Amino acid sequence: MAAVMKPRDPDVTYSQVGTRPKRPDGVDKVTGRARYGADVSAPGMLIGKVLRSPHAHARIRGIDTSRAEALEGVKAVVTRDDFPGLDELPDGGGEEVLVDVACNVMAREKALYEGHAVAAVAATSARIAKRALGLIEVDYEVLPHVTDVDAAMAPGAPVLHETMFTRGVEPAPSEPSNVAERSEIVQGDVAEGFAQADVIVERDFRTEAAHQGYIEPHACMASMSEDGSAEMWVCTQGHYSVRDMCAQILGLPLSRLRVTASEIGGGFGGKTTVFIEPTALALSMKSGRPVKIVMDRDEVFRASGPTSSASISMKIGATRDGRITAAEGELRYQGGAFRGSPVPFGAECCFALYDTANVHLTCYDVVVNRPKQAAYRAPGAPMASFAVESVLDEIALELDMDPIELRLRNAVKEGSKSIYGPSFGPVGMVETLEEARDHENYQAPLAARQGRGVATGFWPNYGGETSVTLNVNTDGTVLLSLGTPDIGGSRASMCLMAAEELGVPYERVRAIIADTNALSFNATTGGSRVTHSAGMATVQAARNAIDNMRGRVAEMWGIDAEAVEWEDGYARPSGSNAGDFEPMSFAEIAALSSQTGGPIAGHAEINAAGAGNSFGTHVVDVEVDDQTGAVSVLRYLVVQDAGRAIHPSYVEGQYQGGAAQGVGWALNEEYIYGEDGTLQNPGFLDYRMPVASDLPMIDTVIVEVPNPGHPYGVRGVGETPIVPPLAAVANAVARATGRRLTELPMSPPRILAALSESAEAG
Amino acid sequence: MAAVMKPRDPDVTYSQVGTRPKRPDGVDKVTGRARYGADVSAPGMLIGKVLRSPHAHARIRGIDTSRAEALEGVKAVVTRDDFPGLDELPDGGGEEVLVDVACNVMAREKALYEGHAVAAVAATSARIAKRALGLIEVDYEVLPHVTDVDAAMAPGAPVLHETMFTRGVEPAPSEPSNVAERSEIVQGDVAEGFAQADVIVERDFRTEAAHQGYIEPHACMASMSEDGSAEMWVCTQGHYSVRDMCAQILGLPLSRLRVTASEIGGGFGGKTTVFIEPTALALSMKSGRPVKIVMDRDEVFRASGPTSSASISMKIGATRDGRITAAEGELRYQGGAFRGSPVPFGAECCFALYDTANVHLTCYDVVVNRPKQAAYRAPGAPMASFAVESVLDEIALELDMDPIELRLRNAVKEGSKSIYGPSFGPVGMVETLEEARDHENYQAPLAARQGRGVATGFWPNYGGETSVTLNVNTDGTVLLSLGTPDIGGSRASMCLMAAEELGVPYERVRAIIADTNALSFNATTGGSRVTHSAGMATVQAARNAIDNMRGRVAEMWGIDAEAVEWEDGYARPSGSNAGDFEPMSFAEIAALSSQTGGPIAGHAEINAAGAGNSFGTHVVDVEVDDQTGAVSVLRYLVVQDAGRAIHPSYVEGQYQGGAAQGVGWALNEEYIYGEDGTLQNPGFLDYRMPVASDLPMIDTVIVEVPNPGHPYGVRGVGETPIVPPLAAVANAVARATGRRLTELPMSPPRILAALSESAEAG
Repeated sequence: MAAVMKPRDPDVTYSQVGTRPKRPDGVDKVTGRARYGADVSAPGMLIGKVLRSPHAHARIRGIDTSRAEALEGVKAVVTRDDFPGLDELPDGGGEEVLVDVACNVMAREKALYEGHAVAAVAATSARIAKRALGLIEVDYEVLPHVTDVDAAMAPGAPVLHETMFTRGVEPAPSEPSNVAERSEIVQGDVAEGFAQADVIVERDFRTEAAHQGYIEPHACMASMSEDGSAEMWVCTQGHYSVRDMCAQILGLPLSRLRVTASEIGGGFGGKTTVFIEPTALALSMKSGRPVKIVMDRDEVFRASGPTSSASISMKIGATRDGRITAAEGELRYQGGAFRGSPVPFGAECCFALYDTANVHLTCYDVVVNRPKQAAYRAPGAPMASFAVESVLDEIALELDMDPIELRLRNAVKEGSKSIYGPSFGPVGMVETLEEARDHENYQAPLAARQGRGVATGFWPNYGGETSVTLNVNTDGTVLLSLGTPDIGGSRASMCLMAAEELGVPYERVRAIIADTNALSFNATTGGSRVTHSAGMATVQAARNAIDNMRGRVAEMWGIDAEAVEWEDGYARPSGSNAGDFEPMSFAEIAALSSQTGGPIAGHAEINAAGAGNSFGTHVVDVEVDDQTGAVSVLRYLVVQDAGRAIHPSYVEGQYQGGAAQGVGWALNEEYIYGEDGTLQNPGFLDYRMPVASDLPMIDTVIVEVPNPGHPYGVRGVGETPIVPPLAAVANAVARATGRRLTELPMSPPRILAALSESAEAG
Repeated sequence: MAAVMKPRDPDVTYSQVGTRPKRPDGVDKVTGRARYGADVSAPGMLIGKVLRSPHAHARIRGIDTSRAEALEGVKAVVTRDDFPGLDELPDGGGEEVLVDVACNVMAREKALYEGHAVAAVAATSARIAKRALGLIEVDYEVLPHVTDVDAAMAPGAPVLHETMFTRGVEPAPSEPSNVAERSEIVQGDVAEGFAQADVIVERDFRTEAAHQGYIEPHACMASMSEDGSAEMWVCTQGHYSVRDMCAQILGLPLSRLRVTASEIGGGFGGKTTVFIEPTALALSMKSGRPVKIVMDRDEVFRASGPTSSASISMKIGATRDGRITAAEGELRYQGGAFRGSPVPFGAECCFALYDTANVHLTCYDVVVNRPKQAAYRAPGAPMASFAVESVLDEIALELDMDPIELRLRNAVKEGSKSIYGPSFGPVGMVETLEEARDHENYQAPLAARQGRGVATGFWPNYGGETSVTLNVNTDGTVLLSLGTPDIGGSRASMCLMAAEELGVPYERVRAIIADTNALSFNATTGGSRVTHSAGMATVQAARNAIDNMRGRVAEMWGIDAEAVEWEDGYARPSGSNAGDFEPMSFAEIAALSSQTGGPIAGHAEINAAGAGNSFGTHVVDVEVDDQTGAVSVLRYLVVQDAGRAIHPSYVEGQYQGGAAQGVGWALNEEYIYGEDGTLQNPGFLDYRMPVASDLPMIDTVIVEVPNPGHPYGVRGVGETPIVPPLAAVANAVARATGRRLTELPMSPPRILAALSESAEAG
């Protein structure tokens, strides 16, 4: 229960941890056997389709479903009338406001963005369901809309929620506003800090919304019995959270809803909430049949969560010798049509890397007529870091100082107080900067139109509630039952840690993701929490099983359990008084289990604390084509502290994947809205993500400064690598072209425009 | 771990245990949503079909699969060559000999019975698979066969296994034999016993094989990945045992095979082994695709296990006042083509009811050219009891003594030594006899051609390895994770016991059957072990969760955990020094779990001992039509000791179901073989099971003599009710007609023949 664990010796080399066995899910994924969200079916299953608002903002005066219901093959139509009222919902207590999630899942009074669900149909075929959608008549009163964060904050902007009054403002406002909340982080005295500065740079930045871009669209199947219990199969990062939200939105006890997580084709935070799942369940409830809903890519873009677009002002002062004296910034993030943009995370992360006495950051959480944002890898951090790291680059240029050196002079160390509260334990910020500085990439020669950009990034990492069971088979093999969907190799990492603890080869350990009924609660896979938390629970479950086995061996030997020690997969007598017994292997003890008390298992249910913070430094070389405006990435180096890399290939994969997504965000990805508030590029042809040919092999260096809060020193590694790329690429472009771009993406038209201004200026 | 538990007070009335809530699986079963063996599918799935021997006994000289393999749509053909050699199999250690199971699943050197699998095909459709079977050319050398148990024991009988030499015979025989084993139960001195007898009756009996007759044929789906790990979906009473057998037969580590038990449409022991499952897995391995095999009814009859046919000689002596002085018998059971008939169980059970000093039973386990027998409800006991209880009825008639009174004078009580070893604890033999005697049915008037039969029955009941996890949700609902397929209401019973322990309403508790990876090992549902063993584990898991909650409450209150007691769903301060705290409810503690250490769960992995023996007395009234030979059942009373009925409706259902199956076995069901050794009646039209209109409502009385080995006093109830009906019906027929039938079934032709002999004799 207690989630504090004795760390293993950080200087030890392990026999399993740190090796690179084959991915346990690899073969099934490449051969097509892995079962994803859409790969399930049930006898009598219907297909569900969702009718979505064509308007960015409209009052729904009425919905006539009678013609759709009359269509042969249609078994159920649901609208807002089929969901319990928002005032009947529990307060929740999760990260998201349940009322907003419910209202996002099915529009109530108003459609708040183009793509907002207003009705759904379940029919015997997809064709019939689609036809039925066309027969639903919605009486819309189209309202003025706003999709830009700054415009939404401006006086006179169309107001989305008449009941939303800005929080965190004194005196409490009397007029509704699109600003859901204003908050601040204040440390020291910025006026005094700026007074000490020799150089001050102030810039405004804008980033566009970027979608997580997972390969697999959202998909689920819900089957509700007439007796009020249901099963769901869902592509998600957190099936317990899907259970909890669906049950609460539809008024079911948690025990009545059993959710299984399918294999997942990418999530990156975007699959931590519900979109179609409560709707599928409501359709199943109404039709009495299993219902499957699979989003298409258009729906994914229009109606699932991208991250926020942001508008940021940042001002930083430094002394001639490179000490940052003050930073002042304003962060304005839109969270789509509902409160809850990740602006607080942006503020927490952008200055957590630097030991700066005087900081003042003001945050605005803003609503606009866009889809409700969802978590996207290090939610909120990349945009704010883009601003800070760009300004720091300008300061380095003004000071004629190496940009890594500038950061080293301000880097946080063990004992530094973080901007968001706690003091740091042992952290690897300095180590990643030094490794980057010493890497061969940092010395590679650059030609004309080429530039090298540097940026650093931070993510705090989280722990949280986790349950793991470890079952020992009589043939000496081991089964791990995990409840955290594996989006980044956690099955392999957990098996490695279990194998290390038990002293058995990795090949004998297999892990599954259990359903919500089979295993106790698990928080969602996200926040870079799983290798830490589920790892901690796995180690605890393994030690629990070992204690159990020690007890059995002690009984066989007729000695105290304390006199039996576990070492390298063997129970041995410990101490001179224990007696002289032949050590018993794990497999021998397992084979005897039925004679020594029954099956052997280990369990752990914890609320993991002690997550280690993660720091990374990126170095990127680009070349800018001044004819086309295209930016080519020549070299890319990620250096990041993993604490301890359990399976280094997966860690490297996280580093590379984060960098690749960050490059896309920096150079090409953006949500483009038309005048009418509708999305213009809801497909991968127009929403341009980097493909393999757009990128070089991304170089990685794993720094290991062990996290004392984890038995193997693990730090989460998933989020941090997407934090630095926006600024790193912008800094490289600035150094290649002499022109600093402060608006993302740095797409060819913007590059050409900047170059032509540059030419005019020159 | 320790499977000894403090019993609850047997005189207490519980708030949940003993109530009759609705079946948790009922709605899904009647609406068709419940997913049975055939109700699963997977993308790319193939259909498997099995080629079966048309000969009762034949050497397989060769199998040419080339034409089948060439057929378009055929993706894999397997024969004996695709299975590891029998000499590569591990010894096992289960109840069944693994080599025999492997050889039954796919014939090796010889086809040993009509229906024995010789090859199998996986194809893209059932039609193609069926066509492909016709293209497989098997070169058979047909051998002489034997299907009757007595004929198989006779000198010169065709020998099935050239390497089988009778065990248990001194000196060890030099010639192979169809008698696999001879064994004895000897107690006292029968010669002396018979010398004391005033009356001695000796008779020969014969019973035919009866099939379990479950509604749902065997069905499974296997999907093996190229990386050597597999998933299976199986209709079974024991998915862990399916896993173990399939893994061993195909040489896989247990960790590589994840088996999920489907809902089950009846088992009665017949689904405790494997038939098509390893074949589906081998086909999936070879084709690289998921493969589903569903038996048809013909295959179920010809190739799955009915129980043994038996030939029994029984001689019993008694004094004039009804004391049994000696019993001597010979039990000859055929187990089909492989060793392992349940003849030892027959010997254990038939005299366990009586406190008889002198007993000598000799058992013969015989092989014949029939399908390998499988467990069928109280395996082996009904036939032997048919013999004993029929002879006792004759003795009662000779002594002119009430048949219940005769049994009461010999009934075992607490402290009596059982014939098979241990002494009895508190048992309900006397109580069931007395309840039957005092029941109104026993006084009902009888007309001409009507007769009343009495018989008693016994089953020892078992415990065994069981794992249960209990998860507490934050909304105060509870999830039970069980690993024993629910064939008789165990989900409801476990939820009742968990609810009782926790002090929450039954409606808040739900149970699932977890797969083999999610939960530690569970022995198969069978032997009437589940309500006892899984109940014990459930109670232990609930108490484990309660201890966990007491610890959390103690921490919140700042007192010792020992000072917190659990009562009726509340944690309360216990003792005068504990302090003055408001009791906290289960739901309150559950809601706070994330702040008090994380998810709350309870676990138990046990090897349950302490199963309570089960006794039952049946009273049946029949009327015999002397024109047609048809026997009508007028009244049927089952009185049985349940120890404690957790959910009385399910207990009554077991009593009624066992009686119904026993009546079928007594009156109509039989395997009819032709001269050529082929089964003549492989379908429900010709194999005549009783339907609703064949039976009256079966009356039941639940006697409760608590089993001190279980916290609620539970005794298994599933097997015993099929033990008495064979003799009870035969005794009723004897008393109705004056003619004792010693051969089953007592079908109309046999009745007519007996009546005509009777008439001739008269």
